[in-house]
Amino acid sequence: MVASIQRVALVGGTHGGELIGVFMVNKFQQFPLQIQRNGVKTVTLLANKKAVAMGRRYIDTDLNRAFNPQDLENPQLINYEQSRAKTIARQIHSEKIDLIIDLHSTTANMGLTIILSSSHPYLLRLAAYLTEINPKVKILRYPPNQNASYLISLVELGVAIEVGAVANGLLDAKLFQETEDLIHVILDYIEADRQGQPSATEANLTSYRILGKVDYPRNKYGEIQAMIHPRLQFQDYKPLHPGNPMFITFDGKDIFYEGESTVYPVFINEAAYYEKGIAMHLTQKHKEKYSFA
Amino acid sequence: MVASIQRVALVGGTHGGELIGVFMVNKFQQFPLQIQRNGVKTVTLLANKKAVAMGRRYIDTDLNRAFNPQDLENPQLINYEQSRAKTIARQIHSEKIDLIIDLHSTTANMGLTIILSSSHPYLLRLAAYLTEINPKVKILRYPPNQNASYLISLVELGVAIEVGAVANGLLDAKLFQETEDLIHVILDYIEADRQGQPSATEANLTSYRILGKVDYPRNKYGEIQAMIHPRLQFQDYKPLHPGNPMFITFDGKDIFYEGESTVYPVFINEAAYYEKGIAMHLTQKHKEKYSFA
Repeated sequence: MVASIQRVALVGGTHGGELIGVFMVNKFQQFPLQIQRNGVKTVTLLANKKAVAMGRRYIDTDLNRAFNPQDLENPQLINYEQSRAKTIARQIHSEKIDLIIDLHSTTANMGLTIILSSSHPYLLRLAAYLTEINPKVKILRYPPNQNASYLISLVELGVAIEVGAVANGLLDAKLFQETEDLIHVILDYIEADRQGQPSATEANLTSYRILGKVDYPRNKYGEIQAMIHPRLQFQDYKPLHPGNPMFITFDGKDIFYEGESTVYPVFINEAAYYEKGIAMHLTQKHKEKYSFA
Repeated sequence: MVASIQRVALVGGTHGGELIGVFMVNKFQQFPLQIQRNGVKTVTLLANKKAVAMGRRYIDTDLNRAFNPQDLENPQLINYEQSRAKTIARQIHSEKIDLIIDLHSTTANMGLTIILSSSHPYLLRLAAYLTEINPKVKILRYPPNQNASYLISLVELGVAIEVGAVANGLLDAKLFQETEDLIHVILDYIEADRQGQPSATEANLTSYRILGKVDYPRNKYGEIQAMIHPRLQFQDYKPLHPGNPMFITFDGKDIFYEGESTVYPVFINEAAYYEKGIAMHLTQKHKEKYSFA
């Protein structure tokens, strides 16, 4: 099962304030040889240039929700990010990109999270490999219909890297280095795979599947009435049991998780999700054995 | 030495993305009795309303650099923050505010930092009291000429509270509660003082005095060439000795602190200071004994 990956796009700055990806792309634009491999060409792309220049997530709308195929075909969608999405989509296709690595960061304590654009066996095998060589890597999977507006959905082999916790608008050296290491491991894997190096025919993959989102408690005017509970803050990928505290009001009253089963919250207290009505996503933890015949 | 403090202004949202102050002011606007004391009236003020609504630090320019007395008198300064500064200054004076508490947060690991607007003995005594009852409180002092453009400089008795580390655009429950506790301790102190309760006639005050700023290493185009070193990240108020690593380049080369004496960096990796050319401030630690005769 060798996928014929010849061209990789390394994307940063899909969100302007997520500086690790921005500076990573800047670095590799200066030193492009570092991301080339035998038979695999990697191109770099700074996705939301205007937002990067302004130090903001986006100018008009979230670029990483602008890649729905219907939206890309819709001539009425012409704001900055909608136009930019169309340009990027054309570029990805005209350059015959096989695999996209899209670099993100988050204020949630997501460590080194990998989000896959599909359940293509190549991605599952890559994901299993990455978690095996670095236990800090976590695999996060969205329902297929939710993936469609992300930049990585432009190709079947898409990998978003979400690192955190890190505030927007600043560089964290440790996470920068860990992200860079992860990029090199992925490129090395693609190269070895192309060269026909024997790889696993079976793999155990632990992944976290998104069940849904939880909003902040709000009043009838939509105003937030409680904060992430201190005992949940930064506890991404840790089990949340029924009855555990989830939020705390501004008066110090606990609000508990009332679900019936243990879940694993992620993107807890991501700053960019306040406006989206998301305090966290809840996931289920899955351990699966895959055979790659 | 009883200062006749009758009216306090509690200010939040001087920077729009610093949500702890914004939500604190919202809370006390709903429950104003919680911040009233015998003989001491506290009013609340949301300083940069437009920036709060936009979730940004500022709209045109940094509001907390707009309170220079000459600037407040200058009719040519009319952008949003310059106009807002004039409105706030008029309000502070027409409401006869004696003491301002201005609520900030920072991406640097500043814990609970108190910045004073002057060396008025009342402030020094208050500062000594706060550090005594909560060792997490740190007192940070700017050279007198550097203070003049801050909102707290509108009054002789100004206290800025800087809490962190917390990303912009989100609420941290633990820091919210610690900030609220600190506000109550300050108001209780003012009340007790007004009521003539015997207070310390001497105090030992440890404070950190700003020596100057250090920028990121940059190339001739002004582009950042290195990040805060992982060993310095989040180490605010810890000693930095000559020869200690300060930055790390994108290629992993260490850059060392070459000063001649031990200093105590603060505001390390504050996101809002990238554009100001500040990677950190260096301070000296002072222990002084004050007598309040």
